[in-house]
Amino acid sequence: MGFRDECGVFGIFRHPEAANITYLGLYALQHRGQESAGIVSSDGTELFVKKGLGLVAEVFNQEMLQKLPGESAIGHVRYSTSGGSDSKNVQPFFARYARGQLAIAHNGNLTNSESLKRKLEELGTIFYSSSDTEIFVHLVARSVRRFFVDRLIEALEQVQGAYSLVLLTPKKLVAIRDPHGVRPLVLGKYGDAYVVASESCAFDLIGAEMMREVEPGEVVIIDDKGVTSYFPLKKPEKTSQCIFEHIYFSRPDSMIFGLSVYETRKLLGKQLAKEHPVEADVVVPVPDSGVMAAIGYSEESRIPYAMGIIRNHYVGRTFIEPKQAIRNFGVKVKLNAVKEVLNNKRVVIVDDSLVRGTTAQKIIKMIRQAGAREVHLRLSAPPIISPCFYGIDTPTSEELIASSSAVEEIRKFLGADSLGYISIEGLLSSTSNSSRSFCTACFDKKYPIPLVDNL
Amino acid sequence: MGFRDECGVFGIFRHPEAANITYLGLYALQHRGQESAGIVSSDGTELFVKKGLGLVAEVFNQEMLQKLPGESAIGHVRYSTSGGSDSKNVQPFFARYARGQLAIAHNGNLTNSESLKRKLEELGTIFYSSSDTEIFVHLVARSVRRFFVDRLIEALEQVQGAYSLVLLTPKKLVAIRDPHGVRPLVLGKYGDAYVVASESCAFDLIGAEMMREVEPGEVVIIDDKGVTSYFPLKKPEKTSQCIFEHIYFSRPDSMIFGLSVYETRKLLGKQLAKEHPVEADVVVPVPDSGVMAAIGYSEESRIPYAMGIIRNHYVGRTFIEPKQAIRNFGVKVKLNAVKEVLNNKRVVIVDDSLVRGTTAQKIIKMIRQAGAREVHLRLSAPPIISPCFYGIDTPTSEELIASSSAVEEIRKFLGADSLGYISIEGLLSSTSNSSRSFCTACFDKKYPIPLVDNL
Amino acid sequence: MGFRDECGVFGIFRHPEAANITYLGLYALQHRGQESAGIVSSDGTELFVKKGLGLVAEVFNQEMLQKLPGESAIGHVRYSTSGGSDSKNVQPFFARYARGQLAIAHNGNLTNSESLKRKLEELGTIFYSSSDTEIFVHLVARSVRRFFVDRLIEALEQVQGAYSLVLLTPKKLVAIRDPHGVRPLVLGKYGDAYVVASESCAFDLIGAEMMREVEPGEVVIIDDKGVTSYFPLKKPEKTSQCIFEHIYFSRPDSMIFGLSVYETRKLLGKQLAKEHPVEADVVVPVPDSGVMAAIGYSEESRIPYAMGIIRNHYVGRTFIEPKQAIRNFGVKVKLNAVKEVLNNKRVVIVDDSLVRGTTAQKIIKMIRQAGAREVHLRLSAPPIISPCFYGIDTPTSEELIASSSAVEEIRKFLGADSLGYISIEGLLSSTSNSSRSFCTACFDKKYPIPLVDNL
Amino acid sequence: MGFRDECGVFGIFRHPEAANITYLGLYALQHRGQESAGIVSSDGTELFVKKGLGLVAEVFNQEMLQKLPGESAIGHVRYSTSGGSDSKNVQPFFARYARGQLAIAHNGNLTNSESLKRKLEELGTIFYSSSDTEIFVHLVARSVRRFFVDRLIEALEQVQGAYSLVLLTPKKLVAIRDPHGVRPLVLGKYGDAYVVASESCAFDLIGAEMMREVEPGEVVIIDDKGVTSYFPLKKPEKTSQCIFEHIYFSRPDSMIFGLSVYETRKLLGKQLAKEHPVEADVVVPVPDSGVMAAIGYSEESRIPYAMGIIRNHYVGRTFIEPKQAIRNFGVKVKLNAVKEVLNNKRVVIVDDSLVRGTTAQKIIKMIRQAGAREVHLRLSAPPIISPCFYGIDTPTSEELIASSSAVEEIRKFLGADSLGYISIEGLLSSTSNSSRSFCTACFDKKYPIPLVDNL
Repeated sequence: MGFRDECGVFGIFRHPEAANITYLGLYALQHRGQESAGIVSSDGTELFVKKGLGLVAEVFNQEMLQKLPGESAIGHVRYSTSGGSDSKNVQPFFARYARGQLAIAHNGNLTNSESLKRKLEELGTIFYSSSDTEIFVHLVARSVRRFFVDRLIEALEQVQGAYSLVLLTPKKLVAIRDPHGVRPLVLGKYGDAYVVASESCAFDLIGAEMMREVEPGEVVIIDDKGVTSYFPLKKPEKTSQCIFEHIYFSRPDSMIFGLSVYETRKLLGKQLAKEHPVEADVVVPVPDSGVMAAIGYSEESRIPYAMGIIRNHYVGRTFIEPKQAIRNFGVKVKLNAVKEVLNNKRVVIVDDSLVRGTTAQKIIKMIRQAGAREVHLRLSAPPIISPCFYGIDTPTSEELIASSSAVEEIRKFLGADSLGYISIEGLLSSTSNSSRSFCTACFDKKYPIPLVDNL
Repeated sequence: MGFRDECGVFGIFRHPEAANITYLGLYALQHRGQESAGIVSSDGTELFVKKGLGLVAEVFNQEMLQKLPGESAIGHVRYSTSGGSDSKNVQPFFARYARGQLAIAHNGNLTNSESLKRKLEELGTIFYSSSDTEIFVHLVARSVRRFFVDRLIEALEQVQGAYSLVLLTPKKLVAIRDPHGVRPLVLGKYGDAYVVASESCAFDLIGAEMMREVEPGEVVIIDDKGVTSYFPLKKPEKTSQCIFEHIYFSRPDSMIFGLSVYETRKLLGKQLAKEHPVEADVVVPVPDSGVMAAIGYSEESRIPYAMGIIRNHYVGRTFIEPKQAIRNFGVKVKLNAVKEVLNNKRVVIVDDSLVRGTTAQKIIKMIRQAGAREVHLRLSAPPIISPCFYGIDTPTSEELIASSSAVEEIRKFLGADSLGYISIEGLLSSTSNSSRSFCTACFDKKYPIPLVDNL
Repeated sequence: MGFRDECGVFGIFRHPEAANITYLGLYALQHRGQESAGIVSSDGTELFVKKGLGLVAEVFNQEMLQKLPGESAIGHVRYSTSGGSDSKNVQPFFARYARGQLAIAHNGNLTNSESLKRKLEELGTIFYSSSDTEIFVHLVARSVRRFFVDRLIEALEQVQGAYSLVLLTPKKLVAIRDPHGVRPLVLGKYGDAYVVASESCAFDLIGAEMMREVEPGEVVIIDDKGVTSYFPLKKPEKTSQCIFEHIYFSRPDSMIFGLSVYETRKLLGKQLAKEHPVEADVVVPVPDSGVMAAIGYSEESRIPYAMGIIRNHYVGRTFIEPKQAIRNFGVKVKLNAVKEVLNNKRVVIVDDSLVRGTTAQKIIKMIRQAGAREVHLRLSAPPIISPCFYGIDTPTSEELIASSSAVEEIRKFLGADSLGYISIEGLLSSTSNSSRSFCTACFDKKYPIPLVDNL
Repeated sequence: MGFRDECGVFGIFRHPEAANITYLGLYALQHRGQESAGIVSSDGTELFVKKGLGLVAEVFNQEMLQKLPGESAIGHVRYSTSGGSDSKNVQPFFARYARGQLAIAHNGNLTNSESLKRKLEELGTIFYSSSDTEIFVHLVARSVRRFFVDRLIEALEQVQGAYSLVLLTPKKLVAIRDPHGVRPLVLGKYGDAYVVASESCAFDLIGAEMMREVEPGEVVIIDDKGVTSYFPLKKPEKTSQCIFEHIYFSRPDSMIFGLSVYETRKLLGKQLAKEHPVEADVVVPVPDSGVMAAIGYSEESRIPYAMGIIRNHYVGRTFIEPKQAIRNFGVKVKLNAVKEVLNNKRVVIVDDSLVRGTTAQKIIKMIRQAGAREVHLRLSAPPIISPCFYGIDTPTSEELIASSSAVEEIRKFLGADSLGYISIEGLLSSTSNSSRSFCTACFDKKYPIPLVDNL
């Protein structure tokens, strides 16, 4: 809890209501980005663009969707990672170049974007946005290769970093996942149509069937000839799937990297109970991020589970605070403690992770005010000591409380009676049934993709 | 599940930021009414009114709150019970009459409103709104008694039904609860200021302290002289607190009628497990209404608890459905089944109540599609066989599935393997630690207040 | 120039698109009130209400008009005369009373409203709005007469002041003009339908045919039996049509009180040239209010007419002024001088009237900056020395520059080389072809209707 | 009448409220483009962008202007010339390239844009927008010259067509006018700050002083060193100032190409009266486009001037038309005939030009319905027989009524008793006091700049 979300992508090929279905897909992926939304559709000849700041249901209405004709479409939801909301960076990114029109939606982050930008600018390229995504388009446009797929591959050979992409041209839908497989991307079948999405929960809403993951390093091209798959890029020694997708980002009803997010989170809770047992009366999740792990902790520890913190679901974007300060106001507009559950109890609070620690501190205060005798915090992520450069908007090292403080210092700062983080080993063992390996750089600084521009 | 909410009221006396605090109070009561919101403030001489359609955070902004000066205020959130949204009926209701200005916010429903309206109209009264609330104002205005409190009492002597009221005059804040005590109303202290609210959760947010319930039949007048209490109305044999406030309406972190809503709901779940045990693998709540009872059911039955249905928190008010129908779309935009939790399992689904049964039917279908081997529905309310006339917007008897169908017929309609309702006795025993008795008319047709205009 | 507008009313009976046509009628009357707009329609049984703050085209859209079913409707546009914009006072005013539903739209002002309100409040009446209009409804509702028309007449017998009214009941459209005939009201035929409007320009837009004025003191009832006319009220010695409707308020393409507004304004300009001739090079109107009189002045004086001041038609409601003050900014966002027309010229500026004089002062400065050698101001209204109590929102006497200053003092204040007001005699002679007499109270304090509550 | 507007540009250098003043400048230029507005400011290091669809006062509010810091800024208002409103094409166009940031606002149209785009695309350039303006930026970015001004000149050497440009870099404001001088651009002084604008009326509003025109072919660079002027481009034999700026586009209070727009329009009316005299009773302008020419016609012919057509100033963007058609509805929502002025009269109608003729036809019908005995149409532009390719959005030749029909045929189509167009010679003689020559290609097909991509 404390991270901001990242991005979600969706695409569909050959469906009479391509834009409408993309709208629904984005709606199911809304948790991955609440700041802007965009859809580009193709009628086979031309691309049509509609984008805006806000939630999917705020940006789009029936009238706008009708102005997105055609049988293929891609969409994007986004949390702006820098510089506040700016309409320039809303995706999908659209461009015209010598061989036609192209739109692209990107989840992830390039590690050599500054070098590439500098190189392209020296060749006279102008950049309209400040997003990484625009780089792909310039690289494709500058390639002199004859066929689209070759130009695309030439472009991909130059970029490094994390990317799950969906591209749309007037006649093709393309889905690409970087060779390390950092971000998720799944492929499905929807009647006669094909669909791609960041998470499988987007397929559930529309009633599509999940076929498989797009593989790390795979380029899937969907057009009138069907689905063609390429693996043009050098394979790294091992994949580096983002473990945080399981800990926090993805929806619990999604299948991510071949595993159920729900089951994984519950296993993390069980593991946490094994690693950090405690005598207590009640296990309480921080809603909604800690719910599954709390259920696991409760099952393993046999301490009863209780919803001792209630979340207000009407939280708006801006909130008027009275001049006369209210204690723990920032937390209380979202969460409220249930006195009858907590009073005179020894309480285990379960959350997914700790970033700055300031919110957790307020929650613990609120729980003590509700009468708790002891408060034990358990976290289903190990200490975060270093930022993510692969598409998650983490604070700098200075702001990450675990980068400079030992566990005991953090416990004191939070005011908890005890504090238990899951171990990296415990975390990996809980996801060991995955066929591929994970990135844990934010916990151990072992960055699997070189940080070209950040060192 | 299936009911629409009713209303929430809030009031504050002598606080430098009266309107701001009322705004926060209404925000905490938002679950009681999402269709409109209004605040009336007093600067000691005059009343100021701001109202609108929408959520509290949509209706009010900083600028509007600044136009509500003064140290006392009342507020109201509302779900329109008839005829769609209409700006005429947004509360608080404001009026000028011979002795000055008056505003009133009402939670409840009068049973002799039509008779009173007819009588008043025959005397030449015009009605601006179609709400019951306006009647109070006319009765007060027509009274020839000299003192405000006497006029108020004369008005109250004429009305029958359920009412928790807050009134504001330029110099007084008044809180009133009907003699049967149908709807909740609590009194609190906030520094030097007094506060009243439908539920105690409104006090938690602002950091106020709950003093006590406003008693059934009590008239509390708060002015410069302090708090004065009157019991001017005839006391009925017993009180008739709305049991549905505990089953569904109130927030689980509130104290209602002297009981914790959270604890009561959990007890209902335990009782349900005793009355309707079943061999099963997992207990799954319909979120969020069935969560507490499911926890209780799980504890009592020792069947593991799981969040097998995930709720989408970004549900907007309007939603664009594709022309080509999607199966169970209406339910799926709000809820999604977690296949990994349900597949091949014997599932106990716990919800609060059944109204028409159509949504439950879709949920059960969705759960079966997710692979459940058996689906057992358990409800923490008895069969609803008759409408509420005391302030809850229930469908007519014809639409209430339990009014005409036996449990077995309902089970077949829903497609469940078994169906268990809590008994009325079980329900009452779970709330037996209350010092007062409850209204159960919707389950047994024993209406405690005569239905003057509905028979 | 300087007055704020007042109100406009429209009504239609038996037309399949009653609400749509009322919308168009109000649009044509938009110059009479820009602050709010409302329409009430009747489907023969019930009334439907839609109102809002803003211009007609902002308040209504296709969807809202579709929610106003039925074949009769009334509408209202309004400039709020006191206390800023407040949704309580938006007309038409709607009410239910013993005999049914009633809506009323009012242009004018009652002079005994406070006495009537006090009397009604003593009888226990509550007032929802602060507008005069609500009084009519209470008087109708309190009448014990059996027939609607009798109740209506009983109500009218009690009110004094200026009123042009349209009323709507489920089955009747009523148009009423006060016995003094202060405000205009015209009756027309639109195919098989009847229409009423404040000004005939509303008929032009929809293509309706003007039949005649509603006569002073006339009550016109339109229902399934056709048009019935009553003259139930005592006739005053003479009528008192508002002369300012011709000078400023009405649209120049309207027929008001039997005279063309355009022709009258031009005659005023001619008369002004006769009374206040001057040697000059060019006659320039203050657009748009002074255009017709300037044309008349030019024709009579044979001094060339020129549009030496240009109006910006994109003036919005709010305007951001830089911190660093711009000279005459308030006037310049609306008007700009044409240097080539004014430079080195002796200029006659023609406007309709002078209220506070502050805007005219800025305009004269702007014209001098543009190089004018002499500036002569001519006004087609006599000095305004006293407020209007019959429906026009004039400032108090203190703010009216002519109430305390002599013409020569005003000239100095304005910085004009000469200043000429039309005389009251000249004004009346220019409208002498009317069959009825005019109210000139704002020029001579001879108030034709007693100011019961304002003395 | 009948043309849609084109574009307006504004710029300011070294003023503490640069964005606020640009807002006011754009407001004064609003008549040149109502579809979108944008401002880019510079704080000396970085550029800040705010753009949107709508009027200036709709797009910007105080809060947005505060997010445009710095002491220099440029702005743009625009009428979308193709494909409806699209947020991609809203100007100023912003880009980052190797040497920094650049924003550009453009009034005009390039004639070799398609060739240039093709050439650039072959080099791998991508285009974000479909506007010509983006081309300038790519050409600047691709130049390998060392200094900004050299890169700029290299870019200008490649483009052909009409362009009045303002550019902003973090440290410079640049104003450029194409060698033919097709579109206007003026330079002014505002205290210590410099300002540039499409028309001088923008200077009047803020109180700036006009210095001079930016000369055809001139590049004006304003930075900390002051104002530097370059004439790097080949001079054509003669300039080709757009004559339609005087006939229709510019505001009458502007000085354009060294002439007063007001005086020129009046001279056109006088010339028209000489060329096409007629016995008549009244000269009536089509407001507002025909007003100045009508005044001139009246003065020359000594036929009285009258505002026989009234314009409704509340015309909104969308308008609801009833299903049952109203005669001449499209014209009547904007204009209404004054019967008293027209009835039984021989009427000369003066307008600026005729495009398709459909609106004029409706106006003439409306005037006849008002009782006119004769209707004589006079136009202060010659017959438009060919489209403009230099920045005005004219219909295709097929839609231009004069491209295929003789004057007599057009007269019959319009239903006029006579029809008189000003002659090209008469038009040019009325502007003969200009020091430079005009483009009249839309009247005589003599296109002064080669139509590279349109032939």
